[in-house]
Amino acid sequence: MENGSCENGSDNQKWKFRGNKELNTSSVSVRGFLNLLMQNINGKDDRPTILICRGDPTEFPSYRTTSSAVDAVVDSLRSFNFNSYASTVGVPVARKAIAEYLSQDLSYELSPDDVYLTSGGSQAIEIVVSVLSRPGANILLPRPGYPNYEARAAFDNLEVRHFDLIPERGWEVDLDSVEALADDNTAAIVIINPNNPCGNVFKYQHLKQIAETARKLGIFVISDEVYGHLVVGSNPFVPMGEFASIVPVVTLGSLSKRWMVPGWRLGWIVTNDPHDIFKKTGIVESIKSCLDISTDPVTFIQGAVPQILEKTSKDFFSNIINIMRETSEFLYDTIKAIPCLTCPHKPEGSMAVMVKLELPLLENISSDLDFCLKLAKEESLIILPGVAVGLKNWVRITFATDLPTLEDGLGRLKAFCERHAKKQTNQSSNGDM
Amino acid sequence: MENGSCENGSDNQKWKFRGNKELNTSSVSVRGFLNLLMQNINGKDDRPTILICRGDPTEFPSYRTTSSAVDAVVDSLRSFNFNSYASTVGVPVARKAIAEYLSQDLSYELSPDDVYLTSGGSQAIEIVVSVLSRPGANILLPRPGYPNYEARAAFDNLEVRHFDLIPERGWEVDLDSVEALADDNTAAIVIINPNNPCGNVFKYQHLKQIAETARKLGIFVISDEVYGHLVVGSNPFVPMGEFASIVPVVTLGSLSKRWMVPGWRLGWIVTNDPHDIFKKTGIVESIKSCLDISTDPVTFIQGAVPQILEKTSKDFFSNIINIMRETSEFLYDTIKAIPCLTCPHKPEGSMAVMVKLELPLLENISSDLDFCLKLAKEESLIILPGVAVGLKNWVRITFATDLPTLEDGLGRLKAFCERHAKKQTNQSSNGDM
Repeated sequence: MENGSCENGSDNQKWKFRGNKELNTSSVSVRGFLNLLMQNINGKDDRPTILICRGDPTEFPSYRTTSSAVDAVVDSLRSFNFNSYASTVGVPVARKAIAEYLSQDLSYELSPDDVYLTSGGSQAIEIVVSVLSRPGANILLPRPGYPNYEARAAFDNLEVRHFDLIPERGWEVDLDSVEALADDNTAAIVIINPNNPCGNVFKYQHLKQIAETARKLGIFVISDEVYGHLVVGSNPFVPMGEFASIVPVVTLGSLSKRWMVPGWRLGWIVTNDPHDIFKKTGIVESIKSCLDISTDPVTFIQGAVPQILEKTSKDFFSNIINIMRETSEFLYDTIKAIPCLTCPHKPEGSMAVMVKLELPLLENISSDLDFCLKLAKEESLIILPGVAVGLKNWVRITFATDLPTLEDGLGRLKAFCERHAKKQTNQSSNGDM
Repeated sequence: MENGSCENGSDNQKWKFRGNKELNTSSVSVRGFLNLLMQNINGKDDRPTILICRGDPTEFPSYRTTSSAVDAVVDSLRSFNFNSYASTVGVPVARKAIAEYLSQDLSYELSPDDVYLTSGGSQAIEIVVSVLSRPGANILLPRPGYPNYEARAAFDNLEVRHFDLIPERGWEVDLDSVEALADDNTAAIVIINPNNPCGNVFKYQHLKQIAETARKLGIFVISDEVYGHLVVGSNPFVPMGEFASIVPVVTLGSLSKRWMVPGWRLGWIVTNDPHDIFKKTGIVESIKSCLDISTDPVTFIQGAVPQILEKTSKDFFSNIINIMRETSEFLYDTIKAIPCLTCPHKPEGSMAVMVKLELPLLENISSDLDFCLKLAKEESLIILPGVAVGLKNWVRITFATDLPTLEDGLGRLKAFCERHAKKQTNQSSNGDM
């Protein structure tokens, strides 16, 4: 088995095939960590398991998608016009509707030809990583970040170099480290805005600085905006495409988060490129080639996109934002009151925030993973260890839950931290001496 | 541009990134050829363009999917229970329903754990090719075949070796050439049954021989059964999984063809493996790992699968088969009457058949591609050149159209062939001399 052959017990048959171990080790996904933690749940705990770790609040009635979006899909399906294979770049009416939707936030108009439909944001990542995976090339990824980028890069043998997001500066990009990392084989820098996992929203001026840095380095920007418009703080969401005259930008987006339908698998890749640099450099051709040999988003959901974008009420969006503002503030305030946890930056958007573990204040906790495993076992509470997103000894907590669930979950987190806190009496008596 | 840097006309900015040329050349897809042919259509021809080249008849009302399948999807969507991310292996109720559905044709029961849901048959191909893409490995593919296998293998740097399907033997696999091709690095052999592009249905005894050959070689069988049950001849459809006690089998399937909904993107990978050889050799782990970092089929369509499989009437299936039996026989009889075309084997299933061009009988036609390009230009008729499926100087014609469309299309094909036939008078006068 280890050397690839396998005997069938019955008759010594030798089999030559075996699994792809490279593949197995490259799959460091959020879902992989969640599976690991779920296995650690104590079956004897009568309390329900609480997950405050995922960007998927669809199980909560308060985050139910708008019925107008459901109606749009039903109408498209019942029309029988959208059951066929779609064009690999996407259905024309959907491309046009998304171009118009995104142009509302830009000072110029996108063309439908700038829009390529994908099976969710995750396939958008698959495609852009494949496009960049020339031998020798590298890509700059944020730390902390979203591990699907690392996993797909490993899968495609694309070298990854990490730059830091700086908690003390509201998780802004460390632009000096970006300049130090880039070389002649660097193709692009990825930013995620609103940011997963940190919960910050990049300011206009900082985005402009990122654009200028990328231009200086001769690389383009991949702006992952799947959390676009999910903003609960005062920084407005500014699409990176606004700086496309400085540097060409590929935007990744999706219905999943803003419409609360991650299971619908409808995403997009958009080229923001007034100077046609992506055409001249062959990036557009490579995107199309990759889409040619990849699966597509469901045709009737593509057909529903114009009606979804047109008919969703502002109330639906503002209700969701109001709930998330309340839960994010509750999360921030609660964490502040737990001594062994630090949240350096109040969440402003996306669905999650990074919280630092003060390990010296904790007894018998060796790491973030250890913390999360014990938390799962003792409190039936699942939060994501920071190592899953590239930041050891931090954790990622989501505020995209309803308030009662978050109250229950954070209550358990507080109890766990109190139980595992190093005895303060010893410390203060030491201090008194 | 050629060396990868690109100047932005305005200010001599240098850009370091460029497209992935390897990706561009690997995308030899049916869709690529269709795009090429569509560009050759003469805009001044008043007649509608006829496509008899695709496995997608959904535009014809007679091939409309059953309303019970549409209702199942609407019910699942309106339940609001299936909007979240799905488990990467698939929604449990869907895995169970597919296991039961496929077990109806087997002499043993599949387990839900044998079933992995994919975004259509095309993602099933993506996944299995990735699983096999260890450095140095190779895979045996049929010629003619379905070019997505070659494209994904090129994308993943998996070596491909082609064995022949033999037209004179009803497109059976040339098992001698299979044995000659395989070596210690061969992992699997792919068969497509019912066969695309040849239109044959493999007999029970031949499938058993394939299983025995694979066992002898120590490789497994990937059986692409996306056209499962689409049978118009007398050979019944036998799933390759029936021989899983001889050799482990991975079956690929989909709702796309039998339910006439290719745009729904709901497919599956199934391990038929009573001796757990796929577990022992790490294939199962690799499939799961690959699914972990890949996009998923839409959750609410997965949720509809039990109702779709349960409620679709036998009449729906038999109506479709009756239409295709009529069109396939009309196609076969018409081709027989055109001197420069030969159809060596009457279609028995799938949606298409291979037809040989007798180039010596044609004037000024240099190849199958030349034939198809001129046919598009002169007759606004699109058929697929054989080179797209690996068989030069043949063409693939689909019978999954309605009869009037096929009559019109084949009328144009006949007129084209008559117009381009070498003058018989010269030949016979030569013969007289």
